[in-house]
Amino acid sequence: MEVKALAFDVFGTVVDWHTAVAAEVVEASARNGLALEAGAGEAFAKEWRRRYVPSMERVRSGGLEELPAAERDRLNLAWHRLRPWPDAVEGLTRLRRGHVLCTLSNGNVALLVDLARFGGLPFDCILSAELCQAYKPDPRTYQLVPSLLRLRPEEVMMVAAHPSDLRAAAAEGLRTAYVPRPQEWGGDGADEPATEDRFDVVASDFVDLAARLEG
Amino acid sequence: MEVKALAFDVFGTVVDWHTAVAAEVVEASARNGLALEAGAGEAFAKEWRRRYVPSMERVRSGGLEELPAAERDRLNLAWHRLRPWPDAVEGLTRLRRGHVLCTLSNGNVALLVDLARFGGLPFDCILSAELCQAYKPDPRTYQLVPSLLRLRPEEVMMVAAHPSDLRAAAAEGLRTAYVPRPQEWGGDGADEPATEDRFDVVASDFVDLAARLEG
Repeated sequence: MEVKALAFDVFGTVVDWHTAVAAEVVEASARNGLALEAGAGEAFAKEWRRRYVPSMERVRSGGLEELPAAERDRLNLAWHRLRPWPDAVEGLTRLRRGHVLCTLSNGNVALLVDLARFGGLPFDCILSAELCQAYKPDPRTYQLVPSLLRLRPEEVMMVAAHPSDLRAAAAEGLRTAYVPRPQEWGGDGADEPATEDRFDVVASDFVDLAARLEG
Repeated sequence: MEVKALAFDVFGTVVDWHTAVAAEVVEASARNGLALEAGAGEAFAKEWRRRYVPSMERVRSGGLEELPAAERDRLNLAWHRLRPWPDAVEGLTRLRRGHVLCTLSNGNVALLVDLARFGGLPFDCILSAELCQAYKPDPRTYQLVPSLLRLRPEEVMMVAAHPSDLRAAAAEGLRTAYVPRPQEWGGDGADEPATEDRFDVVASDFVDLAARLEG
């Protein structure tokens, strides 16, 4: 198995959207004197994420409609300020020594560039489903990576916390690395199960993934 | 003038193709016992570059046809191992603090990724004319940058050593920074003159460009 490039799903796989967005919801509410029930920030973040894929631009602010417009604009930008999971920067830095690292997300290029800058994520190249005007799991999105990097599909490994993403990548001939992120939805069991799937690599985080690919 | 992103031409503007390719031609010849006249490495590099734009894949190896196939393949890869100009990494690092940095080259994405990795070039994003299946100076190539970065054209500045590139960028509403590279062709006067042109910024190198944009 000679993997030359790794393509990373981003939301949930590289960055923890749940904690950051819930915190910003709570902060924006407090700043504007809105009373939120306990757990409402979390619930709002999850609902936003469910509507988000892949239509961030059209998201409606739901229960926070009372926020002033400027505050709503600010809150929308919470998605550009997501923190990487604690292992992400160290793991990516190690993985990059031997592999070309790119994103492959349904997020648009501008958003991914902001996240990479905010989190100090050492990607070599920002690839997005936007570049082929489709969304994962459309086959064209996975084909984009070997096509643009001039590699064979089996030289590219898709890294994701979502089995459905990896299944679609495997169908296009890419290798797969499953990195579960049990805290993606705050640990409440909303994660995708991977009961029947087989992956080329299963790793507990990106540092573990680097160790497995080096070994 | 609120410039948010800088788009860099690469060959000649960021990297010195001339010195590296001439040196590899001389080395490949020596390694294979071919006699080269003085200056033939330089002449070959220049001729290669003239044919190269934008058809690297189809380049014919001309006077080095006697090289074994493996050596010719290796020599082709000289274009993936070009050194940045001495000011480039420091200048880009400073510029990146306040701006999103991307490439905008006729070189394909895979080649640009290799050059950024080889030279340690801190680009946020690799954009290539390949992404819109056109070549500079086609207007679509310049429009790609504000479109993908979700900016207005006047928030993007094209940085190039070639006035023709900047003229075409300005026609699409981008700002322009001219950074002459008098040694691009080894200082023999093959550079493009900029007699009649007006640019938003003229800088002697990328460190100077950073100082001008900060000031």
